[in-house]
Amino acid sequence: MKLNQNGLLIVLSGPSGVGKGTVRKALFESEGHNFTYSISMTTRSPRVGEVEGSDYYFVSKEEFEQRIKDGKFLEYAEFVGNYYGTPIDKVEQNIEEGREVVLEIEVEGARQVKQKKPDAVFIFIAPPSFEALHDRLRRRGTEKAEVIKERLDKARRELMLINDYDYIVINDDVNNAADRIRAIIRAEHARTKRSAEGYIELLEESNHDNTK
Amino acid sequence: MKLNQNGLLIVLSGPSGVGKGTVRKALFESEGHNFTYSISMTTRSPRVGEVEGSDYYFVSKEEFEQRIKDGKFLEYAEFVGNYYGTPIDKVEQNIEEGREVVLEIEVEGARQVKQKKPDAVFIFIAPPSFEALHDRLRRRGTEKAEVIKERLDKARRELMLINDYDYIVINDDVNNAADRIRAIIRAEHARTKRSAEGYIELLEESNHDNTK
Repeated sequence: MKLNQNGLLIVLSGPSGVGKGTVRKALFESEGHNFTYSISMTTRSPRVGEVEGSDYYFVSKEEFEQRIKDGKFLEYAEFVGNYYGTPIDKVEQNIEEGREVVLEIEVEGARQVKQKKPDAVFIFIAPPSFEALHDRLRRRGTEKAEVIKERLDKARRELMLINDYDYIVINDDVNNAADRIRAIIRAEHARTKRSAEGYIELLEESNHDNTK
Repeated sequence: MKLNQNGLLIVLSGPSGVGKGTVRKALFESEGHNFTYSISMTTRSPRVGEVEGSDYYFVSKEEFEQRIKDGKFLEYAEFVGNYYGTPIDKVEQNIEEGREVVLEIEVEGARQVKQKKPDAVFIFIAPPSFEALHDRLRRRGTEKAEVIKERLDKARRELMLINDYDYIVINDDVNNAADRIRAIIRAEHARTKRSAEGYIELLEESNHDNTK
């Protein structure tokens, strides 16, 4: 019996190289899941094969900046001269339609979401050790030593923000991590703050039927 | 990877007749579980076959009242002239030894535990409807109509306290309810407030090893 018909907004964040993407992928391979992700809006040009509304929403810089002013992003960032952001309206629509919206974003983006949606579920995907993070960044093979060092330093700073999150999930094994996140989502649906109102309504209905 | 080695204190409560006992039993039938329950202390006389330290701790009324004064109970109540209580020391010992201590208690007892252990996990086992609760109380067969009416009235009052609980688990099906509680326990272990400290320690150790 489901008490709240709305989906949850689930924010997966954590340092670069921790494996947020693979954990998110494992989560979306769950049987009978009800997860959806949010399509980002960007000002960069579509690459060959990219489809509007499926890969990204492509807009002009002017439109993006107007949307920032209008508070229409859950979070946004500038990267190599282009904007990337999460449109708030699509997220809200999915939640109201009962889907669990999973955002896999950087720590700075998560900070922005926390300000707009403090009731979202904030999960910090954490490395089992700095060495493991170092290994992962190195194994990507595309990064130079100084870039790796920079990322590790950034990861150290990001770990200071861990107390802003509701949960810590260590990515020691991707399936374990996904399992833990599934348990968290199940538990969050049972939280009194999300379900008490729905439960009381349910009882009142059953009570009403009773006195007919 | 487990971040906090301590067990949790899990309080299962809810109205009389909701099926707390059967849910607790299903929980204890989980594979590879690490649950333990707390043995109550009482001033009533042992019945034939009851074993001290296994069924109850049997003490005199004087000893029980001294223990109340010394704050040695997580919760206690008087019932038909006898005291029943949960000794705090055994609970703490089990938690420190890494066991999940499950207390299946009345709403008034849960209120007392909340004052002493606000960090415990408070789960309200809720009936799917008043009708279902009525049916369960009637099916017990031992209770007279006016006793059933009294219990339903009490259940209505107890439902007002639902917001003091962390979670609401509807006992629509005992195995579903036990599953949800298992997910809640798993999620609670990942909560930042319980695991951040352990995680930071872990990282510092791995960092230390790294620089050797």
